[in-house]
Amino acid sequence: MDDIIFDDSQQSTSTTSSSTPLNQTNASEIFISQGESRRNSLALEDDLSNFDQLTLSAADALKSKLTDMDDFTFKRKRSVGNRLFSRTDTPKKRSNLEGGYVSTSLRKHNDEEFDGDVTEWTMEGTGSRVAYDDFTTIDWIHDFAKERARQKRLHQQKGIRGRLNILFDAMEGWIVVLVVGIASGILAGIIDITSDWLSDLKEGYCETAFYLNRRFCCLGYDDEQDECREWITWNSALQARSVAAEFWTNYLFYIIFSTLFATTAAYLVKTYSPYSAGSGIPEIKTILGGFVIRKFLGWWTLVIKGIGVCLVAASSLCLGKEGPLVHLACCCGNIIPRIFPKFRYNEAKKREVLSAAAAAGISVAFGAPIGGVLFSLEEVSYYFPFRTMWRSFFCAMVAAVSLAFMNPFRTGKLVLFQVVYDRDWHAFELFFFALLGVMGGLYGALFIRMNLKIAAFRQDSWLRFFSVHEVVFMSVLTSIVSYLNIFMRVNPSELVANLFRECVGGDYHNLCNHVNHWKPTLLLLIASILKFFFTAFTFGLKVPAGVWLPSMAIGACFGRAVGLTVHAWHMYNPNFWLFASCAPEGRCITPGMYAMVGAAATFGGISRMTVSLVVIMFELTGALTYVLPIMITVMISKWVGDAFDKEGISDGWIRMSEYPFLDTKEEYVYNTLASQVMTRVDDLIVITATGHTLDSLEKLLNSVDYKGFPVVHNAKDMLLTGYISRSELRYAIDKAKKKPGILLSSPCYFSGNLPILDDSIFIDFKPWMDQTPITVSHKFPMEMVIELFKKMGLRYTLVTKKGQLLGLITKKDVLRHLSIMYDPNSSEDDLQENLMMLPERRMSSFVGDFGID
Amino acid sequence: MDDIIFDDSQQSTSTTSSSTPLNQTNASEIFISQGESRRNSLALEDDLSNFDQLTLSAADALKSKLTDMDDFTFKRKRSVGNRLFSRTDTPKKRSNLEGGYVSTSLRKHNDEEFDGDVTEWTMEGTGSRVAYDDFTTIDWIHDFAKERARQKRLHQQKGIRGRLNILFDAMEGWIVVLVVGIASGILAGIIDITSDWLSDLKEGYCETAFYLNRRFCCLGYDDEQDECREWITWNSALQARSVAAEFWTNYLFYIIFSTLFATTAAYLVKTYSPYSAGSGIPEIKTILGGFVIRKFLGWWTLVIKGIGVCLVAASSLCLGKEGPLVHLACCCGNIIPRIFPKFRYNEAKKREVLSAAAAAGISVAFGAPIGGVLFSLEEVSYYFPFRTMWRSFFCAMVAAVSLAFMNPFRTGKLVLFQVVYDRDWHAFELFFFALLGVMGGLYGALFIRMNLKIAAFRQDSWLRFFSVHEVVFMSVLTSIVSYLNIFMRVNPSELVANLFRECVGGDYHNLCNHVNHWKPTLLLLIASILKFFFTAFTFGLKVPAGVWLPSMAIGACFGRAVGLTVHAWHMYNPNFWLFASCAPEGRCITPGMYAMVGAAATFGGISRMTVSLVVIMFELTGALTYVLPIMITVMISKWVGDAFDKEGISDGWIRMSEYPFLDTKEEYVYNTLASQVMTRVDDLIVITATGHTLDSLEKLLNSVDYKGFPVVHNAKDMLLTGYISRSELRYAIDKAKKKPGILLSSPCYFSGNLPILDDSIFIDFKPWMDQTPITVSHKFPMEMVIELFKKMGLRYTLVTKKGQLLGLITKKDVLRHLSIMYDPNSSEDDLQENLMMLPERRMSSFVGDFGID
Repeated sequence: MDDIIFDDSQQSTSTTSSSTPLNQTNASEIFISQGESRRNSLALEDDLSNFDQLTLSAADALKSKLTDMDDFTFKRKRSVGNRLFSRTDTPKKRSNLEGGYVSTSLRKHNDEEFDGDVTEWTMEGTGSRVAYDDFTTIDWIHDFAKERARQKRLHQQKGIRGRLNILFDAMEGWIVVLVVGIASGILAGIIDITSDWLSDLKEGYCETAFYLNRRFCCLGYDDEQDECREWITWNSALQARSVAAEFWTNYLFYIIFSTLFATTAAYLVKTYSPYSAGSGIPEIKTILGGFVIRKFLGWWTLVIKGIGVCLVAASSLCLGKEGPLVHLACCCGNIIPRIFPKFRYNEAKKREVLSAAAAAGISVAFGAPIGGVLFSLEEVSYYFPFRTMWRSFFCAMVAAVSLAFMNPFRTGKLVLFQVVYDRDWHAFELFFFALLGVMGGLYGALFIRMNLKIAAFRQDSWLRFFSVHEVVFMSVLTSIVSYLNIFMRVNPSELVANLFRECVGGDYHNLCNHVNHWKPTLLLLIASILKFFFTAFTFGLKVPAGVWLPSMAIGACFGRAVGLTVHAWHMYNPNFWLFASCAPEGRCITPGMYAMVGAAATFGGISRMTVSLVVIMFELTGALTYVLPIMITVMISKWVGDAFDKEGISDGWIRMSEYPFLDTKEEYVYNTLASQVMTRVDDLIVITATGHTLDSLEKLLNSVDYKGFPVVHNAKDMLLTGYISRSELRYAIDKAKKKPGILLSSPCYFSGNLPILDDSIFIDFKPWMDQTPITVSHKFPMEMVIELFKKMGLRYTLVTKKGQLLGLITKKDVLRHLSIMYDPNSSEDDLQENLMMLPERRMSSFVGDFGID
Repeated sequence: MDDIIFDDSQQSTSTTSSSTPLNQTNASEIFISQGESRRNSLALEDDLSNFDQLTLSAADALKSKLTDMDDFTFKRKRSVGNRLFSRTDTPKKRSNLEGGYVSTSLRKHNDEEFDGDVTEWTMEGTGSRVAYDDFTTIDWIHDFAKERARQKRLHQQKGIRGRLNILFDAMEGWIVVLVVGIASGILAGIIDITSDWLSDLKEGYCETAFYLNRRFCCLGYDDEQDECREWITWNSALQARSVAAEFWTNYLFYIIFSTLFATTAAYLVKTYSPYSAGSGIPEIKTILGGFVIRKFLGWWTLVIKGIGVCLVAASSLCLGKEGPLVHLACCCGNIIPRIFPKFRYNEAKKREVLSAAAAAGISVAFGAPIGGVLFSLEEVSYYFPFRTMWRSFFCAMVAAVSLAFMNPFRTGKLVLFQVVYDRDWHAFELFFFALLGVMGGLYGALFIRMNLKIAAFRQDSWLRFFSVHEVVFMSVLTSIVSYLNIFMRVNPSELVANLFRECVGGDYHNLCNHVNHWKPTLLLLIASILKFFFTAFTFGLKVPAGVWLPSMAIGACFGRAVGLTVHAWHMYNPNFWLFASCAPEGRCITPGMYAMVGAAATFGGISRMTVSLVVIMFELTGALTYVLPIMITVMISKWVGDAFDKEGISDGWIRMSEYPFLDTKEEYVYNTLASQVMTRVDDLIVITATGHTLDSLEKLLNSVDYKGFPVVHNAKDMLLTGYISRSELRYAIDKAKKKPGILLSSPCYFSGNLPILDDSIFIDFKPWMDQTPITVSHKFPMEMVIELFKKMGLRYTLVTKKGQLLGLITKKDVLRHLSIMYDPNSSEDDLQENLMMLPERRMSSFVGDFGID
């Protein structure tokens, strides 16, 4: 028989540690030497040597160093140093989720939720599990297996009752998305109405009924002609006499109310629900990618974020309510399915509903059900099977209908910014659209970089202790500046709607004054620039906040300014060659269309969405004629933006917050093998299938804090048998201890081939063990391992060579590997060196410390 | 050490065949007994025993029975009988692709195309490959690995030249989709113009220029008022005097031309390109799912199908040109990328372009670029990463713009059936829409069943020898009947456009005659019913043919009839409680909208598309107001249809034609393990890593026709080393034989640990071997194996137990397993029994024959 040699030449000094099954003498030697090495080196030395003396067989299973399987904070490995999982190499940076407000008690294990009765559960397969800890990755494979096992049990039921159960089970998913859709629609309606009312409160109040906003208060009046008598402005309430007094009164009330709203929102968020801050999209992406963040989608978040978003939308801060609406819809999508055990106890199934909820969120935020489904598919969802798409479609539709029935805008339409013109565009205008696209891309790239820099500074500096003060400051500043420019004063959704409109049937903010068009053009440009800076500073404050609508407003301002300029150009030079294709009479340029295209460009620039964005834009405006210009612009905007950074705003925030998100979109091309990335078996704690007692296992758990343990047949052959997580082992031990007749010295087994003994004498941990872990060969290219993680939703994979355990690769190892590979501060050569050093360094330290060489 | 026992209790009689590595004595015994069993049983007995005598080591590797890895025709396994891979259990049914017109010479291996220089190729990983044979599944994993290796080589290039190469490489994909898009657009434009001209030829010709169709001939005339003098009808040409003579002249010319067109198309297809028949969508789905059908997307298909589709669209047959347009676009997407080696030699990359081409096809067929992308995503694409989506979007857009520039309809719009009305719908109308949805679902289910039954009859009976005669017959019959009903006489796209229209600015076919509306209603109903039967009989004839537009026409007729009825009801009973929400004055019901909803319902019923269908519908009509009714209708239609059969028309054809398509949409829940489905190692031919000569290997290849061979370390330990396909082994042997110094007796190795000898003395097959095959444990649930096949695009997976090879599961095994599981003629108990019998039956025959028991 040939000698089996490790493939990587740099590891050849340690071939003995992975010797063949037949090489028994060598293998046992290694275990002894490793036992020695451990005693010499580790901090938990005393604990472990005691442990050894107590239970010899368990000590055999115990290897040297630790891997922290699923812990969210990426502990740096000893030999790799600062480069690990920190793309920007700022060592002081910390995880956003850990940043102050998450109490460690959240991390305690929730014992009540587990897989159900173990005896009912099939003994083969991925094993039984307890509920996931907070801040852990979920195991998609296990959850799907669990669901399939449930389905099997269900289908075994016979008779009418059984058939009804099956039918009801099939309907559960639809019922859930129906209710989620309705809830999202109603929620959005309430938020729209409330924020409108609050926003109008800055100007005055309704005399007949204080709880009505201006539009409802003045129902029956024609906006343009009649003056609404029921609506009392603060001016008239305070009986301001002069024009100056009127102006200052309005100004003051604007500033006071804006600041009041923003401050209240910030206070609520800080005190009651820190998770309500921001848009929530990055976290939702992470959660849908298979990560558990408890309470992020809970009741408390729903209530506080709901209130907060109304307040923020009514304030003068340059923030939108679209992102938070998606978060709120996802809260519904998390809370409502809890009534059904099928979703409550299955994180993977729960995520199917969350995908649908995200679609509903976009559907109500933009009145774009199809866009919502595409958004869910393109942007946020990790696992999006066909069934999910169909359900998302239903959910988004129901949400849109619910919102339409609420009719918060009294237009009776779903289309928010309806565009009624249908004038054709001309080929020469494509040049200007391309220009808008380039601007949008530049805007996006610049905005993302600036915003992330500011956010990073905010997180790391003293500023993070003054989140409320910061909001007060920004709010006062924004109010003071905004009031002076009409295009900044009105709230963004009104602004966007007005900018999209054509000059038919009324002039908005002097936009249709064709004699003196330089003034609105200038105001629009100023608004667009100032809004850019305000938004970049404001997004990231600890208030519920979205960045999509403000971006659209910025683009719309800029686009309309360009449109006005082109229009003026055509008006003064109708015979210029560029305008040859214009009809000799009538208008040729539609500035409203430029606003629309500009809004799409900036929206695309910051979000880097493509198909979903185009669909959202045309569901938003109802303008099918302009799909092609919008498509071209979005395309150019994305290309330009991607030339700077490949990531949209939410991906940027995910990276900055160091969420464990494995992007399914990116493709990785590097020349590494699984064996170079894995945590080697010497650095793991491996359990043998036999030879344990309850006591020894408990001691093992108490002495180390690894999140999981591979199980091998025995220490000599190292043949992989399975994998058991810490939580399951803990749970199983605790459960076993409660059984009568079980002693601390009762033998424990992880194997299917048990000695035939009385049940009370030994404990079988097999049902708690993943008996079919996915394994890869040590020669597997890392790209393929990453594909496996992405496509199969793995949590870990075990590296084997001819059945022998060589190492473990966890999702975190993969992320860590990717972050090394993609560190922008290191050159290609650095990368290669860094990578190549990994096994070698470990090896040399191993050799140096214990003198095996 | 424990004895390792096979998990399945029914296999326990043969535990020795999978004994542990340490059990050497037992293991060798088994090999001897298996050798004996083989000699006793198989047909190729003589061959094999000679073979044994020649090369002992190779004989060790040779086991008993065969698996035909990738062969398209699913040979039935001996012990399983008729149930295998035939859902409907009609033993005489045969593969569509084999049905007469595919010569077996196609199956010959194409030696010229292979992976490039072997020395350049990384020695690790999935190994080098030759090009895929016709009718084989592609190995996505290998193709991606190949692409990554290419990328790596590319990125190793330094300097400006290297950078330019990288840039050009990145651009290649975009250039390809740009050209594909333009080509699809132009092609669609030419087809539209030609088929319009041909269609008008049925009525008359243009005097000024015979090559102009009526619309172009009469440019400048107002359709409604002026009579076009340049257009000569056959009537006036033949100087028909009486009204009767006019009618009969027209009738005759209609029949003659229709039949002429259809017959020409059928003759062309039969003589020059059998692959041009049908819509092509099922085959494209199969190809995109990773199957190779050579010439299906070639030049010849493009030309013949292009001509044929014009002829068919101009004839009176109830067929559309939308499906074929997708096929034609995919032909472009196959031919154009050939200029770049990156796509030419990588089937996986080629499929990315094909996905984009499919999107472009829908884009030009319906004027729906976004719908096209969604269609590609939802319906046809198997592997659809984010990058593909973005490219498809671009491709679809370019195609749409190209078509718009061609402007075949002289409307200057992309929107084909533009709907100009914007009247709101009422809540009570939802009831009628739901009714249309139910009808659409019923229609779809009935149509699919009927069409498939007819198609199956056509394939199996004598009819298949008379494909042209059948077309002639159907064409004459259809023409005779169709001419008598105005709604059947006009071609479907004109019909649909007219039915969608509202009664403003002109009456079409008496639809707006409100006094006497029972007549059009009746005509519409008759048209809808007759069209149903004609389409069901016609779709499947050997002519290029789509079924989408005819379905829409059927639905539009029915919908308009319902709309007219409701309209009449409202007109005569305006005070009925149902119409309470109607405005007291003006029209309340929009029959055109009912036609639209009805068309969506039937389209949904036969295609079972969801999101993509809704988007196509509203890009087709430009009517955003009616998205919600359309959504609801499509949803109901799908539910109703799915209650009968879960499959759309293309899935039905895939099943009937027995294409090896693994549906990514379906979810499979059955209680089987990998070990129950695999082809057991006893039934495989396994190669050992060492101990072969060139001669012995060649003899092995000549004596058996298995498509691939697992490689194990040696016959005693059975530790898996890799997998080599027949094609690669063949190629490598042929290549080796040409080398100087290589003798037939030169030793051959499949292992990395070669004896240090001179290069000329031995041959290393390692580079041609897949050294990192994906392996699964024997305990793996089958659902997870299926997930692996679906998500990772596997071609085969090897089943191991602690590193030892237990068996092989190919894609075909998976499909066979699924077809057993889903046989509609067998009950749940049957299934369980059938499955459980599988290993047992084999076992008993084994035991019975050779008396091991």
